Amino acid sequence: MVIVLKNTASQQQVEELISRLERSSVKTNLVQGVHSNIIGLIGDTVHIDIEAILANECVESVQRVQEPYKNANRKFHPDNTVLDICSRQIGGSKTQVIAGPCSVESEKQLMETAIACKQAGATMLRGGAFKPRTSPYSFQGLREEGIALLLKAKKETGLPIVTEIMSLAHIDMFADVDVIQVGARNMQNFELLKALGRCDKPILLKRGLSSTLEELLMSVEYIMSEGNSKVILCERGIRTFEPMTRNTLDISAVALLKHRSHLPVVVDPSHATGIVKLVEPMSLAAVAAGCDGLEIEVHCDPKNALSDGSQQLTPQAFTQVMKKIKALAEFMGKPVDDVG
Amino acid sequence: MVIVLKNTASQQQVEELISRLERSSVKTNLVQGVHSNIIGLIGDTVHIDIEAILANECVESVQRVQEPYKNANRKFHPDNTVLDICSRQIGGSKTQVIAGPCSVESEKQLMETAIACKQAGATMLRGGAFKPRTSPYSFQGLREEGIALLLKAKKETGLPIVTEIMSLAHIDMFADVDVIQVGARNMQNFELLKALGRCDKPILLKRGLSSTLEELLMSVEYIMSEGNSKVILCERGIRTFEPMTRNTLDISAVALLKHRSHLPVVVDPSHATGIVKLVEPMSLAAVAAGCDGLEIEVHCDPKNALSDGSQQLTPQAFTQVMKKIKALAEFMGKPVDDVG
Amino acid sequence: MVIVLKNTASQQQVEELISRLERSSVKTNLVQGVHSNIIGLIGDTVHIDIEAILANECVESVQRVQEPYKNANRKFHPDNTVLDICSRQIGGSKTQVIAGPCSVESEKQLMETAIACKQAGATMLRGGAFKPRTSPYSFQGLREEGIALLLKAKKETGLPIVTEIMSLAHIDMFADVDVIQVGARNMQNFELLKALGRCDKPILLKRGLSSTLEELLMSVEYIMSEGNSKVILCERGIRTFEPMTRNTLDISAVALLKHRSHLPVVVDPSHATGIVKLVEPMSLAAVAAGCDGLEIEVHCDPKNALSDGSQQLTPQAFTQVMKKIKALAEFMGKPVDDVG
Amino acid sequence: MVIVLKNTASQQQVEELISRLERSSVKTNLVQGVHSNIIGLIGDTVHIDIEAILANECVESVQRVQEPYKNANRKFHPDNTVLDICSRQIGGSKTQVIAGPCSVESEKQLMETAIACKQAGATMLRGGAFKPRTSPYSFQGLREEGIALLLKAKKETGLPIVTEIMSLAHIDMFADVDVIQVGARNMQNFELLKALGRCDKPILLKRGLSSTLEELLMSVEYIMSEGNSKVILCERGIRTFEPMTRNTLDISAVALLKHRSHLPVVVDPSHATGIVKLVEPMSLAAVAAGCDGLEIEVHCDPKNALSDGSQQLTPQAFTQVMKKIKALAEFMGKPVDDVG
Repeated sequence: MVIVLKNTASQQQVEELISRLERSSVKTNLVQGVHSNIIGLIGDTVHIDIEAILANECVESVQRVQEPYKNANRKFHPDNTVLDICSRQIGGSKTQVIAGPCSVESEKQLMETAIACKQAGATMLRGGAFKPRTSPYSFQGLREEGIALLLKAKKETGLPIVTEIMSLAHIDMFADVDVIQVGARNMQNFELLKALGRCDKPILLKRGLSSTLEELLMSVEYIMSEGNSKVILCERGIRTFEPMTRNTLDISAVALLKHRSHLPVVVDPSHATGIVKLVEPMSLAAVAAGCDGLEIEVHCDPKNALSDGSQQLTPQAFTQVMKKIKALAEFMGKPVDDVG
Repeated sequence: MVIVLKNTASQQQVEELISRLERSSVKTNLVQGVHSNIIGLIGDTVHIDIEAILANECVESVQRVQEPYKNANRKFHPDNTVLDICSRQIGGSKTQVIAGPCSVESEKQLMETAIACKQAGATMLRGGAFKPRTSPYSFQGLREEGIALLLKAKKETGLPIVTEIMSLAHIDMFADVDVIQVGARNMQNFELLKALGRCDKPILLKRGLSSTLEELLMSVEYIMSEGNSKVILCERGIRTFEPMTRNTLDISAVALLKHRSHLPVVVDPSHATGIVKLVEPMSLAAVAAGCDGLEIEVHCDPKNALSDGSQQLTPQAFTQVMKKIKALAEFMGKPVDDVG
Repeated sequence: MVIVLKNTASQQQVEELISRLERSSVKTNLVQGVHSNIIGLIGDTVHIDIEAILANECVESVQRVQEPYKNANRKFHPDNTVLDICSRQIGGSKTQVIAGPCSVESEKQLMETAIACKQAGATMLRGGAFKPRTSPYSFQGLREEGIALLLKAKKETGLPIVTEIMSLAHIDMFADVDVIQVGARNMQNFELLKALGRCDKPILLKRGLSSTLEELLMSVEYIMSEGNSKVILCERGIRTFEPMTRNTLDISAVALLKHRSHLPVVVDPSHATGIVKLVEPMSLAAVAAGCDGLEIEVHCDPKNALSDGSQQLTPQAFTQVMKKIKALAEFMGKPVDDVG
Repeated sequence: MVIVLKNTASQQQVEELISRLERSSVKTNLVQGVHSNIIGLIGDTVHIDIEAILANECVESVQRVQEPYKNANRKFHPDNTVLDICSRQIGGSKTQVIAGPCSVESEKQLMETAIACKQAGATMLRGGAFKPRTSPYSFQGLREEGIALLLKAKKETGLPIVTEIMSLAHIDMFADVDVIQVGARNMQNFELLKALGRCDKPILLKRGLSSTLEELLMSVEYIMSEGNSKVILCERGIRTFEPMTRNTLDISAVALLKHRSHLPVVVDPSHATGIVKLVEPMSLAAVAAGCDGLEIEVHCDPKNALSDGSQQLTPQAFTQVMKKIKALAEFMGKPVDDVG
């Protein structure tokens, strides 16, 4: 950590600051410049509060040198984390494709869609039982019943289940779910993250709508510091001023997260764009950029979907997209898992 | 609602769409243009799912004409909502100033700060017991003990208490709190909002870091549609690319929210900027723009604060700022409440 | 175009508005709803000024139905535009790779870099003679001398030259350049665009730092409406709040621009990320998403570069990246042009 | 400037880097930490190229400690710059109000508007002769004729003239203009800025649509380093994801620019919001935040305006707004200049 001092800083102010800092068990190193002096902090600065340092009148700015995240940091864990989800390995040499409807709407809708996804080559099944909707007048999900239907679909197809949690009050309902998803709007629901940190289940954590990658990795830290190291990162688009797409897929996030962290990274092209015809090119771009998996929305009848109809592929369209994804993943050396 | 049709739309597709729409109890009106045709929907379209319409192949785009929020909409409730909080009226002819520390850290710190705020003219006391921090290694708040201290400070000073909730699991601890605050990161924690909608307490709802004003008003709808109409809106800065400030205060939000909604609007200049020296000019700007209140962070010893030290005013500084706020609020015709 | 009327609109106001609109040679169609009425405009609305309509007291909002751009619109020109640049075809069945230094710094630097780019398989040579730098104290380019060196490099390597123009006052110096580039900061330098619209040369137009795709296509309209239809679109990253990258590559822009427009689309992964190690994954993502070309910065000695050292590949690194680009482009069915 | 080294940096790499840096006439100071080492640079680093340092393999990141702008920096010029424009002083103890139409459309329109602005208390006259429009099909301004009309209006009303330049090719036409405005889209048109730096006329420089404040001050540096120190800064809203306003007025920019720089700061509430009814509250907010002036669009007949009709006030509305601006400016201790 580097503290830049104001050029009006008095010697007494600087000495007071240094002695306060050294009480926090870091060493300090004063470098005197022409226009301003700086203090370099040596030691573990993760617990140092930047804001408190900034509250000193003699301080102009503070800059962190080390990343504030540890558990997810590749520097301290050079090897990829590979998670096993019902024998699908994510984060290693295979690409996983999580497909399924935005919302679980009925047994018929879910089964029809799940079977089609399986046939097209999906390796896991997604489906929303609890639905975070902007409007309270929109469909809110089948809730507990939705989870029961997902488990039924798992029995039928063999596909492990990925579904979103919206409140720690519901955590018991997720006992048989294979991957618990945390949505973008809950990326900084810290009480929920802590509770999930005490589970022994993979958590798929989506980047918030306007979260930085560092914030995403700090939210991972909430989960991992409680003991659960099974975390999957998900890029699902960020909010920008571009109105043509629902969000803007930050494709560089894939490569950066793989570089900064050892955790698996998946991409959700459906939410990232909100446009059916962009799902194929964005899926291919994500595979080319090195992702470990994709999460794609598929619905047996999008026109009558109760949520996100415009971004869900029909089974026919998904089958076509899967062919291209499979071929490209193979070409890139990380083939789609064959769970036939 | 206006549906723009593709110029490749077949008559059959359009007829199917129209008959599907009319089953949702809205009337349709087909307008034929030169390059494309549009369908105007007449009736209550709040329950119509735009995404499902977009899933029809013949549809190019859908545009909402009416606001999707009802309860907070000034069109349907022309008069200002004025809330009474322990005899302070917010939303009416007085300006309220909520002041206090970012976090409750100890009895000494809270009492000293609360008394100073009262003396300077603050009309309510804020203080964080549950703290949403980006890092799990940062101070997380005194939690239940923090609320107990706030209630003690209320007893001592007579100032009503405003404090943040982070999880619906904690709702019982807030029984004696005067105003429950929902932070920016929980603005779309819909399960929490629904639970607060079943309380009979004022809710101060902060705009999310990258939320639009319409999304803020839709989150209000979650609270109000459950029966609680005591909602205070709070602008606290949005995320932009400008690095000099922590966030960017969207000052036009004050005037827009007052225009679109009948609810009280407060501004938090401390979080909006993260910089002590900007608190005064931003407070004055907010008062000039017509806000109903301010929420300002004050700490008896910012250099040793456990959170947000750089944006908390000392009692001395707050006293100076309050003098200017009082004078300007008086000038603008909405004086700071005198709760002597 | 759809005009939404306020529900307080008087009949007289509406009639006045309609008669004013009909004087602009469009037809109007009034649709009466429950809460508000709308007017649909039928005809060519490209010349209608939305702002003037909004100035009518009875108008709540105006929404455009048709795209405001014509010349670049695929609706009116379904086939891809394929440009020929010294026998390289861009926009068709080949991928072009434009490589070279950020700035032309000296004959030695340019020749060494150009020859290395050629050997690695680049199909065109880029190099900045006029450099738009944030600071006036940074290297501003060799200007006219830089163009002379580029032409020398073209002679030496046979690679066509792509270089940036910063002012219409310099246009004569670009007489022998093969592709004139307009940088992000000049995307809305309309006087420059009009002047380039009167040239008979391909223009590579970069998207502005915070421009929407529609604005990019409207800037194209400035060039094309003056008679020059040889335009290449370039996605080079947009400004977001994410600090880890210089900009955020909007990869969905590639697919959207190919869908909305018939013009060739290239991607600049160097400026989009500002990070050498992201150039490879972003290049591959762009190829997978369907781009027609890449523009990549290469420098024979990045550590001593006079600009953008951190994003320029060494010739060795570029050679490795080119191998992967070639293989993927071949796989995607749009091989890198072989100009051997 | 602080250079953070990778923990994999070899001693040889670090020594090479240090000797390269010391050739640039700065001193270096190596601080060895636990996880990483840093190099502090002492001396004038304005000419050091951060990108070139980042190109060294041993470097992890580089952080600037000093501001890169000098001429506009209040640190080196503590007193306010006060400019005299035909006896109106801007930057000192008076508030200036620049009012007038978006575009000069005709003699009648301009004279009628100018006289009304004068009567309401405006102290300078604005009007666009060259109009940067997103679409080439929109009104492009009367150009040279527009300037002639403005000069006529100056003769008639005595109000000094503020008008926008779009190209350095037009600079001679601005010989009699009092203040040359550079629009947001040209904030980084560096060739134009350099040319204006060689003029002896006040330049009103608008912040770019997504420019940071540091970039704005660096663009000022282009003008001032060429010799022209008469620069006025203008905040006119930045691009965000909020769709209700045309841009988002960054009100904290006013206080920050006054703090960082000694130059006058004006606010344009018309472009910042695009909404007539927000002009009053945003003008008042800007005055309360400490601005030196306002630039407000007024048109004698907005419904028939050829540009930006929706954000131009009628003379009647402007007269009402001016009353409030005058009263507030007086209250804030910086009264609107009385140029009667």
